[in-house]
Amino acid sequence: MHKYSVILGNLGNTCDRFCKGYKDNPSTEEMLARAVRIPYVEGIELVGTWDISPDNVGTMKKLMADYGKTCVSIIPDVFGPKEWGKGTITSSDAKIREQSYDYLRKMSDCALEMNCKIVNLWMAQDGYDYLLTTDYDRKREWLREYTAKLAKEYPTLRFALEYKPKEPRNFSFHARMADTLLAALETGCENVGVCIDTGHGFMAGENVAEAAVLAKRAGDKLFHMHFNDNHGAWDDDMMVGAVHSTIYIDLLFHLKKIGYEGWLSMDQYPYREDATDAIGESVQWVRNFELIVDEHYKEIEELIQQNDAVATSRFMRKVLFK
Amino acid sequence: MHKYSVILGNLGNTCDRFCKGYKDNPSTEEMLARAVRIPYVEGIELVGTWDISPDNVGTMKKLMADYGKTCVSIIPDVFGPKEWGKGTITSSDAKIREQSYDYLRKMSDCALEMNCKIVNLWMAQDGYDYLLTTDYDRKREWLREYTAKLAKEYPTLRFALEYKPKEPRNFSFHARMADTLLAALETGCENVGVCIDTGHGFMAGENVAEAAVLAKRAGDKLFHMHFNDNHGAWDDDMMVGAVHSTIYIDLLFHLKKIGYEGWLSMDQYPYREDATDAIGESVQWVRNFELIVDEHYKEIEELIQQNDAVATSRFMRKVLFK
Amino acid sequence: MHKYSVILGNLGNTCDRFCKGYKDNPSTEEMLARAVRIPYVEGIELVGTWDISPDNVGTMKKLMADYGKTCVSIIPDVFGPKEWGKGTITSSDAKIREQSYDYLRKMSDCALEMNCKIVNLWMAQDGYDYLLTTDYDRKREWLREYTAKLAKEYPTLRFALEYKPKEPRNFSFHARMADTLLAALETGCENVGVCIDTGHGFMAGENVAEAAVLAKRAGDKLFHMHFNDNHGAWDDDMMVGAVHSTIYIDLLFHLKKIGYEGWLSMDQYPYREDATDAIGESVQWVRNFELIVDEHYKEIEELIQQNDAVATSRFMRKVLFK
Amino acid sequence: MHKYSVILGNLGNTCDRFCKGYKDNPSTEEMLARAVRIPYVEGIELVGTWDISPDNVGTMKKLMADYGKTCVSIIPDVFGPKEWGKGTITSSDAKIREQSYDYLRKMSDCALEMNCKIVNLWMAQDGYDYLLTTDYDRKREWLREYTAKLAKEYPTLRFALEYKPKEPRNFSFHARMADTLLAALETGCENVGVCIDTGHGFMAGENVAEAAVLAKRAGDKLFHMHFNDNHGAWDDDMMVGAVHSTIYIDLLFHLKKIGYEGWLSMDQYPYREDATDAIGESVQWVRNFELIVDEHYKEIEELIQQNDAVATSRFMRKVLFK
Repeated sequence: MHKYSVILGNLGNTCDRFCKGYKDNPSTEEMLARAVRIPYVEGIELVGTWDISPDNVGTMKKLMADYGKTCVSIIPDVFGPKEWGKGTITSSDAKIREQSYDYLRKMSDCALEMNCKIVNLWMAQDGYDYLLTTDYDRKREWLREYTAKLAKEYPTLRFALEYKPKEPRNFSFHARMADTLLAALETGCENVGVCIDTGHGFMAGENVAEAAVLAKRAGDKLFHMHFNDNHGAWDDDMMVGAVHSTIYIDLLFHLKKIGYEGWLSMDQYPYREDATDAIGESVQWVRNFELIVDEHYKEIEELIQQNDAVATSRFMRKVLFK
Repeated sequence: MHKYSVILGNLGNTCDRFCKGYKDNPSTEEMLARAVRIPYVEGIELVGTWDISPDNVGTMKKLMADYGKTCVSIIPDVFGPKEWGKGTITSSDAKIREQSYDYLRKMSDCALEMNCKIVNLWMAQDGYDYLLTTDYDRKREWLREYTAKLAKEYPTLRFALEYKPKEPRNFSFHARMADTLLAALETGCENVGVCIDTGHGFMAGENVAEAAVLAKRAGDKLFHMHFNDNHGAWDDDMMVGAVHSTIYIDLLFHLKKIGYEGWLSMDQYPYREDATDAIGESVQWVRNFELIVDEHYKEIEELIQQNDAVATSRFMRKVLFK
Repeated sequence: MHKYSVILGNLGNTCDRFCKGYKDNPSTEEMLARAVRIPYVEGIELVGTWDISPDNVGTMKKLMADYGKTCVSIIPDVFGPKEWGKGTITSSDAKIREQSYDYLRKMSDCALEMNCKIVNLWMAQDGYDYLLTTDYDRKREWLREYTAKLAKEYPTLRFALEYKPKEPRNFSFHARMADTLLAALETGCENVGVCIDTGHGFMAGENVAEAAVLAKRAGDKLFHMHFNDNHGAWDDDMMVGAVHSTIYIDLLFHLKKIGYEGWLSMDQYPYREDATDAIGESVQWVRNFELIVDEHYKEIEELIQQNDAVATSRFMRKVLFK
Repeated sequence: MHKYSVILGNLGNTCDRFCKGYKDNPSTEEMLARAVRIPYVEGIELVGTWDISPDNVGTMKKLMADYGKTCVSIIPDVFGPKEWGKGTITSSDAKIREQSYDYLRKMSDCALEMNCKIVNLWMAQDGYDYLLTTDYDRKREWLREYTAKLAKEYPTLRFALEYKPKEPRNFSFHARMADTLLAALETGCENVGVCIDTGHGFMAGENVAEAAVLAKRAGDKLFHMHFNDNHGAWDDDMMVGAVHSTIYIDLLFHLKKIGYEGWLSMDQYPYREDATDAIGESVQWVRNFELIVDEHYKEIEELIQQNDAVATSRFMRKVLFK
């Protein structure tokens, strides 16, 4: 069984472009108090600027220690600042590239201080919206250059590139597993890998179980995992199991098969739900799926060799309707 | 519990535009022998021309009686003949409109002779492919006119319009539940209703449980049900439960709630699977989902009043991982 | 040629769930000053609460008169208030249903005072997110009840129901043209119709030209039009013509053919663009497409009778590459 | 300007899983006679088995020479034979892997004899349909192994891997540009690259202009191009320009910018259209888009540096509505 964690911000307020806030704004401390109440959660991911910054790193370190929880990753907030709306390290403006790179350094320093092993880079604004407006090569080159520079400056940290096909940009540079692997490989740095967010994979039309295997084949590049569910067409960021079932078993089986040793982190956006309960549900669903994989590992291994959809269907019925 | 049936052709050969046949071509008799071996299957749907025609209606009637099975519906083959490739009763060619209407009459005669209550109209070629090539109003008017004419000529039969957003045309006239209800209502005929194919609904981005309610509200217009599953973007015609779970429970609950009294028919396209086994799997999945609905009907009724996704998640975990 | 208008809020700030603001917040007056600078724009749509309320209706009326612009529609803000996040007139909470209905009345009063003919109802929060959480029939009944009540209370106003398949809810009750027509017809009120937003149609997999014809057939129910473009999978709210071309000509041709006499309104969300320029672009694109339709109306009428995609392709090349 | 070609089979019969043939079956000679009548077409792609085999390679070579046309590529028919329905070189059955590999060798021999530089590998059956049925790593390893073996055995040929996310399998191993580049790079062979089919890219949610740049960055791996259009969600295989416009200009600009020197081949599936005319239309559309790129190359170069969607919109209006 893997260890479970949660992104702290999931326990805060939610909004969209039409409604400024479906809930109230809790403090970081309140969110943390909520997070630690969720059964099986042993780690926390912190969003840069909001949850963690050079100013409060000492306080946060102590808080986490007091709760006995691990800081699993730091997610730099490269998506919130207005001035980075058209990109950070791939901005056409050299000053913004440097400014955002400096921010990534600061966040990496925080990670070091927190004994946090992973910086999760969701480069959400690095992409484009309209066709015929972008020098794709020039921007990918900046992406490569700054990612490599960061990875070399912080050789003891692991940088997990989190991909997503779109939102907030109409097209992201880190869009799917394979192109993100290419981006990681281009850096030539061993400490640059990939983070799968299951929902991002679903909306990309990807099979995330196969994506995990792609990462393995490219040199053990799966660094981190985010879990949620959606209706297939968009990043609805729902509770695990709300829509899909078999895919999670396929994924968790292959995570075990490729020897993934990282965390299973919950990443939802509970717009209108009680956040603590909703994230707790996801943990329970992932756990239940993991228990199925653990209990039936050999049987599943045989199933995937058999390549017979009827046999798989029988297996799924057996484990779900026993 | 509802009664289960299967479309006979599902047990035959499969092909696509690249491969002319993944299997061998069994005779209608062989397919029937296979179908009746599937547990819980009490009814059969016959595809016009292939399985049933004025020439063999007597033979088929006897065969079905011998097996003790009901002829649930007849599905006229309006999709196979080359000359109907650009439409049947909505063709721009008056001769084709008349010719295909005559065929629909013949199939309706067969239904009467078979004591079959439903003619399932999947008007697959009635649509269009390219933008700016179609007089939508003119064609919808023909659709209305001939559908009404048929329904009036056969007042004891029920005509179920089966919708699908695309394939074989890029756009179908009967595309989703609501537009098909409008088409049914336009005829002014009580015996014109709709058939939900779950996979067609999934690929249309529809919630088929809500679609069933729409049909109820429009005057008890849900006449028939086809079951299968897919990956969400295309009519993959897979075994039920292969991808989705909650949606089937939501659907079966609402079928019960609206008092649906028709058949639950399996409609798959087992390209590379053993057809008998694959359809048998779907029956088992639907049955398992139905058992959950039956056993927990009141609880689900309360859940949908509660409008609390966390409560629903807990319920789903309880029934799947007990 | 139709008359052009713009939604005032399009000229304001933009945000998404990750970035609180890509721009600055201009005042209503500033936005109006921007809007009137856009060539060919003769009308303005106002968003309730933000742009118009009982408090400022006099001021706004004078401002519009001074600029010589028409108030084309009022769009009640039923999507912003936190307490309406789980629905307004379909909320499970009776108090919220009444409260939001009162708000719709106030906005209708404003419309009367502004001599504005249309209240555009984008019931964005009326829908649901998770499966197996919703009594679809109960909620659609409330939707019908309150919509009818409003329409009867304000018989001189026209209520245009704007549909969208999802966002902000995972499923909207007014999702596509046909289900929204059913909702309008259920009210039994002549002054309830539909608004097409082209981008909402694209993301729904709809052909909006066919949607316009559906509205015509259901009793001249097309009340209003919003224009924008997207990449096909989401409501990217881009400039017209950024991705698609032929569909706009098909649509504008059919608007003329069905005798649509309403406004062509621009509805974009220029996240990172200069709003005045971006909306001005859309107006120019729509105008150019309209000019093609006007100049070639008879030719297009023949094309759609011909039902020959090659002929349509030749026509499109002729008009675009002359 | 690039050289244009067409896949011979596009001029033949069409079918789908519901209709066995929308047209008649012409002979290879007839199809060739049709192809050479299409203005600007200088090259032909031949489908293995159907158009070319060891038996007729001499005849075909002479025919092509008589017409003065180049054999641009050979596309082995690995998708038609029933026994390869569950995969060829990735089949779980060793005999099928060897048998299909032998076939690929024979087709490569034909290519050599035809002085044809490219073997276009569309490994359509190499993928999977159901979740939890596939050892992704094992199968990708066979894919790598046999592709590399073939490339090494035929070092003077270039093998272009054509990707497509699905159809005929629900998931293809060569699904999108980036994963196909990974597959090509894994072989370690310089003569293994990628073929972009524009419609496959559209249905995958890819920006094909960006895909071309990815291929360039991975070591000049863009070997071949297939052109068609679709409605965005499926491989409708329509005439170029039927739906989209800007994307083709973006693509053709970047093809020029990366120095692509291959062919621009038309690959449609004109189900219900006159094939010669429909393919001729695509050639004209691509040519018109290319002329725009050629005439405005510097201006576009500046546009993509500017990163301003309004400027791009203005440019598009200028070139389309001048």
